[in-house]
Amino acid sequence: MSESTRAAAEAAGSHDSKPPPPVAIICGGGRFPLAVAESAKRAGRDILLIGLIGAADPAIAAHPHVWLRMGELGKLFQTLKGRAIVDVALIGTIARPQLLSELRPDFGALARLPEIARILIGGDNQVLTSILQLFAKEGLRVVGAQQLAPELLAPEGQMTALAPSKAMLADLDFGRACLAALSSFDVGQALVVGRRRILAIEAAEGTDGMLQRVADLRANGRVRAKGRFGVLIKAPKKGQDLRVDLPAIGPATIAVAERAMLAGIAVESHGVLMLERREIIARATAAGLFVIGFENR
Amino acid sequence: MSESTRAAAEAAGSHDSKPPPPVAIICGGGRFPLAVAESAKRAGRDILLIGLIGAADPAIAAHPHVWLRMGELGKLFQTLKGRAIVDVALIGTIARPQLLSELRPDFGALARLPEIARILIGGDNQVLTSILQLFAKEGLRVVGAQQLAPELLAPEGQMTALAPSKAMLADLDFGRACLAALSSFDVGQALVVGRRRILAIEAAEGTDGMLQRVADLRANGRVRAKGRFGVLIKAPKKGQDLRVDLPAIGPATIAVAERAMLAGIAVESHGVLMLERREIIARATAAGLFVIGFENR
Repeated sequence: MSESTRAAAEAAGSHDSKPPPPVAIICGGGRFPLAVAESAKRAGRDILLIGLIGAADPAIAAHPHVWLRMGELGKLFQTLKGRAIVDVALIGTIARPQLLSELRPDFGALARLPEIARILIGGDNQVLTSILQLFAKEGLRVVGAQQLAPELLAPEGQMTALAPSKAMLADLDFGRACLAALSSFDVGQALVVGRRRILAIEAAEGTDGMLQRVADLRANGRVRAKGRFGVLIKAPKKGQDLRVDLPAIGPATIAVAERAMLAGIAVESHGVLMLERREIIARATAAGLFVIGFENR
Repeated sequence: MSESTRAAAEAAGSHDSKPPPPVAIICGGGRFPLAVAESAKRAGRDILLIGLIGAADPAIAAHPHVWLRMGELGKLFQTLKGRAIVDVALIGTIARPQLLSELRPDFGALARLPEIARILIGGDNQVLTSILQLFAKEGLRVVGAQQLAPELLAPEGQMTALAPSKAMLADLDFGRACLAALSSFDVGQALVVGRRRILAIEAAEGTDGMLQRVADLRANGRVRAKGRFGVLIKAPKKGQDLRVDLPAIGPATIAVAERAMLAGIAVESHGVLMLERREIIARATAAGLFVIGFENR
């Protein structure tokens, strides 16, 4: 059993008869917060969804929930203490507030200004580390989607009937090494490589933005290839805290990978969330794309 | 005197009374081929422009010239031998032919098929190395724009009255280290960094494409900052052969850097071509951007 699945099994209470502790899920944008919440609920956990106003899906209202603005840290901590909730997860996309005024801090946030200032600057990893420190100071324990919903993580090995060629596996090795080299710069969760040529590297634009670029480069002839070409490689950055920043793919990723006429998709097993995995595999198969999970080295 | 300026001075015949040898300039797309040709002519060299059909500016016809298709290698080598030209430069953008059929090889090209096959695959550096080997085999000497027109290269130091802040210089160090880490993967001639966060990395899309992306990311709020933010860093890849693949910026770079609301531009001195430098500086100054040349370490 891996570390994360063991932690999840323990958290889900499979090793004793006590009910698992309740968990608050701070919900950013996208469909992951609900998927993780429903998975945690199926595992027998009491859940409280904290919807970030302007980001979270209104559909979270189907579960016990509270709506908060980004800056309402004081209210957040009070809410959690009032319900004796210690475990907190941060799931979904959250636009980084650039300025204190955008954050609209409440009194509880203002009381923690030095910590918050650190959150407003720096690379993603730094930001998330600062958030984790802030939560730890309040006696909260940040848990990850991989603990609440381990079945949502990419498995190891070939997921489609279609397999990558030897050349594509060589591209995978090359691309993984490039991502590893980028990790210490807190950038590069994904790239596209074809025939040992790095075609695109993800930075602030996100994976879908990068794939759309590859589609454009093929359409305008800057990347010229016959038929399916190139592999999307996606993995957590080395040292990335998977509790708060797990990379993810979903059916929409397949759609844009198809537009980019890629040959396939390789994700790090147990390191990338796959929302609606069955749908992902079905769409990839229909599009003629392979999907594999590679082992973390 | 640096290596490259010494070579240029020698080539320009400033050290002896013999006229400098003639040079053939194979002209791809863009404005660099003409700029380099005119600079070489001013330095007293006889020039022959080889226009690649479909790529080169028709304005090259103002000088002694020959038009060739991409695949007419046999004709190219005959032309050069017929005129006793040994020095050849390859200047301007050339779309990489993906397939042999696109290349439309003439007999002289077909006779060199193994070499040409290597040119059709691999990263940019590999391609260019293969081309250089092919030319060397024919007794030709490939010279670079920096030898023919050293005054077109970025100088060292601050070029605008506006200077980068200390934080921007720290970003420059951080971004340069990231580019250096990417070099061994034959990718990353440029990136944009702001407050120690890598916002964009260039791969197949080119520098202008990357800058336009940063402009889009700011417009759609994925990169949020107040006012001018971020530094474009551009440098040759380590081990890159500057004779055939010198990075370049021009006035158009400033226009798109302005759209991206960057704070400034930093280029490696003696490693980046600056076409219309006076115009670049004037536009950067008008746009409130700093421009500096940093020393190669």
